[in-house]
Amino acid sequence: MSALATFPTLDDIGAAARRVAGRVHRTPVITSRSIDAELGASLFFKCENFQRTGSFKIRGATNAVRQLHAESAARGVATHSSGNHAAALASASRGRGIVAHVVMPRNSARVKLAAAARYGANVVLCNPTLEARERTLRDLVRETGATVIHPYNDLRVIAGQGTAALELLHDLSHLDVVITPVGGGGLTAGTAIVVRALSPGSRMVAAEPAGADDACRSHRERRLIPVENPKTIADGLRTSLGDKTFPMIRDLVDQIVTVEEESIVRAMRMIWERMKIIVEPSAAVPLAALLEKRLNVSGKQVGIVLSGGNVDLDRLPWNGPDA
Amino acid sequence: MSALATFPTLDDIGAAARRVAGRVHRTPVITSRSIDAELGASLFFKCENFQRTGSFKIRGATNAVRQLHAESAARGVATHSSGNHAAALASASRGRGIVAHVVMPRNSARVKLAAAARYGANVVLCNPTLEARERTLRDLVRETGATVIHPYNDLRVIAGQGTAALELLHDLSHLDVVITPVGGGGLTAGTAIVVRALSPGSRMVAAEPAGADDACRSHRERRLIPVENPKTIADGLRTSLGDKTFPMIRDLVDQIVTVEEESIVRAMRMIWERMKIIVEPSAAVPLAALLEKRLNVSGKQVGIVLSGGNVDLDRLPWNGPDA
Repeated sequence: MSALATFPTLDDIGAAARRVAGRVHRTPVITSRSIDAELGASLFFKCENFQRTGSFKIRGATNAVRQLHAESAARGVATHSSGNHAAALASASRGRGIVAHVVMPRNSARVKLAAAARYGANVVLCNPTLEARERTLRDLVRETGATVIHPYNDLRVIAGQGTAALELLHDLSHLDVVITPVGGGGLTAGTAIVVRALSPGSRMVAAEPAGADDACRSHRERRLIPVENPKTIADGLRTSLGDKTFPMIRDLVDQIVTVEEESIVRAMRMIWERMKIIVEPSAAVPLAALLEKRLNVSGKQVGIVLSGGNVDLDRLPWNGPDA
Repeated sequence: MSALATFPTLDDIGAAARRVAGRVHRTPVITSRSIDAELGASLFFKCENFQRTGSFKIRGATNAVRQLHAESAARGVATHSSGNHAAALASASRGRGIVAHVVMPRNSARVKLAAAARYGANVVLCNPTLEARERTLRDLVRETGATVIHPYNDLRVIAGQGTAALELLHDLSHLDVVITPVGGGGLTAGTAIVVRALSPGSRMVAAEPAGADDACRSHRERRLIPVENPKTIADGLRTSLGDKTFPMIRDLVDQIVTVEEESIVRAMRMIWERMKIIVEPSAAVPLAALLEKRLNVSGKQVGIVLSGGNVDLDRLPWNGPDA
């Protein structure tokens, strides 16, 4: 069986869209004259920051949770996540009336811990190392029989994330370029499948922080090269591609660009000030790539997925002790 | 002639709507399940923070500027404002190809000075006293022959501000309560005229900071009582009612409620965190009134005008030296 055979198809993503309909928001696409004027392009921002639980992650989590057989579902689901997948899985599980166990590092952002709890997760704290997270999750699964739903390296999750691109391409008749941020690759892979199938003339681009550039290096060298010690303010993009997302990104993404931290902060602030919407640093990475002129979009129509809006308002990058 | 005879009519506001169409955004109305659940009511937020120039002020400014005769228009317009009216008048004037002279106090927020300049205003700095502002404006008008467009005490401006309520009532078939913030009273007066005419069963409420409670006192005592030394974070609401807006508010508004500063900050932060949109402190004042339970909205449908989204991200109320 070729690697290609394991990619979700456009039909899988269409099925996901029907499965999540009414359970996730159909988010708006918005524009900014002032940013367009500055870049000499027409940007269309798909606002997943307005999505339920504050990020696109609810799409994949819902698509996965809804496909569990009743018997497994009754034993609950589990994941380890310091971020948006935790809240998403908790919310999707509550929607189905099942429990979500979420292993989170003790040093997670206060707002993200609070959000997971608010959405009804059973939060299990652990030490902030990958080893501790994986061990804690393993123990938990052994005890409860819960099904692990990985944040991105899961075909159901990838298909769910692709539903945002289905909506984007439905709303816009023509896009020259589509850009997503890339961390673990679930959003990028799902988007790339949709773009390749529905808009093959569009350039499919992913953007990531230079301090967590595993996708760029893996794409260039055609092999999975995880990042060792990611350093970036874009907390959603510190993860590396997985063995399921990597081949899709390798085969379906035209270009991966990296951006500097200061551009991420500048892009984030520009979105806040000009568009009056709140996005998290990860969501600002595609615009950062345009501000850095990492690709030529002059006169083009560009679709950008604003992946999420969960930020700690007490710790903004242009303010406070970390500024 | 009775005072009533000088109120703009619903027809005047309809004419304003046709005049500003295509020149101002038709802003969306958005909702938040999480805030609704917390308050036990259905809130409909009219997003003037997404309006051009970042506030509703562009509506009134455009309606006024578009009505000038060619001869006066050629001599330009002028105003004194430390805030959103400055950017609005500048933008509306640029749209008509005329100059806007804007007298601003030297200590105006950096972002507001920058915004006025970006929209093409001829910014004239003065000392931060009302006397200095008025004298500087008088001198400027004498030199240039410009027409003064007052930020709120002007019937064309009031009619323009009412167009937001026209859109709100067009989008929503039934509202039990409509709440605006009240400063100089242009938005409140324009909204009240529309609500009285189109939805007479709705309760028309205005909310203001306790530290700038001239509207509340004037409404209660049926006479204009300007505030002496306003103290509030809601910089858009430090002004007092004018002799044109006061009678409309006296006669058409059912109730004026005041709120504490800490509630304004709490409401503003709630809107940012839950709705992922940026509003300025003034815009959060109606929600602050609901959080303080200043009026009973249990089970009701409530329209709220989010008046603007221009904030200095370096000086957020929950952060930095002023926190």
